[in-house]
Amino acid sequence: MKFVKHVHHTEVKLEDPAEQGVKDVQLRWLISKKAGAENFAMRLFEIKPGGYTPLHQHDWEHEVFILEGNGVIKNKTNKEAFGEGDVLFVPSMEWHQFVNTGKETLKFLCLIPCKE
Amino acid sequence: MKFVKHVHHTEVKLEDPAEQGVKDVQLRWLISKKAGAENFAMRLFEIKPGGYTPLHQHDWEHEVFILEGNGVIKNKTNKEAFGEGDVLFVPSMEWHQFVNTGKETLKFLCLIPCKE
Repeated sequence: MKFVKHVHHTEVKLEDPAEQGVKDVQLRWLISKKAGAENFAMRLFEIKPGGYTPLHQHDWEHEVFILEGNGVIKNKTNKEAFGEGDVLFVPSMEWHQFVNTGKETLKFLCLIPCKE
Repeated sequence: MKFVKHVHHTEVKLEDPAEQGVKDVQLRWLISKKAGAENFAMRLFEIKPGGYTPLHQHDWEHEVFILEGNGVIKNKTNKEAFGEGDVLFVPSMEWHQFVNTGKETLKFLCLIPCKE
């Protein structure tokens, strides 16, 4: 019996997000309640060049680590470029949008609290 | 005003862990309560070749993503090799130890719930 869940991230199904307003975005639910994670979930996003998540807000935070590629994070008035090895914390209720401005697939981890 | 915390991970201080029983282990607290993260914290561990964390257990889980290097995760009876791009979930109260069995620094993200 395995004492840990252990997979390569590419073994986890690449899914279309349920949310509206995305372009060329897919994600892998690497660790979630299915694995027994009750407090927070680890997802890996893959966004193709020119793709983006919606400009939106919600009442939970994001903890993000950029694995590969380049992009910008925007709110309604500002934007900031980011690249590999960058860390971003988006607080609850902050407007935010991730855009792939590079020439390669943008890959990042985005962790969220598990909702009741 | 910045709408997100945004740093390169190498800008975050590399610290010695408080815990006993570690060898050649340092960590960076990338996102923690200081940044406003109330639910879970993102740390980046750097373990030199031959280094290890203690074989221990505790009442919180780990969500781990291997960024660079190779190693094994052990409990009292088993061990499993891991490498770059691997994902590990260590449930609460599972015995575990991370060992760098490679020739380069092992770097991984390890997220934990924030304790009360």
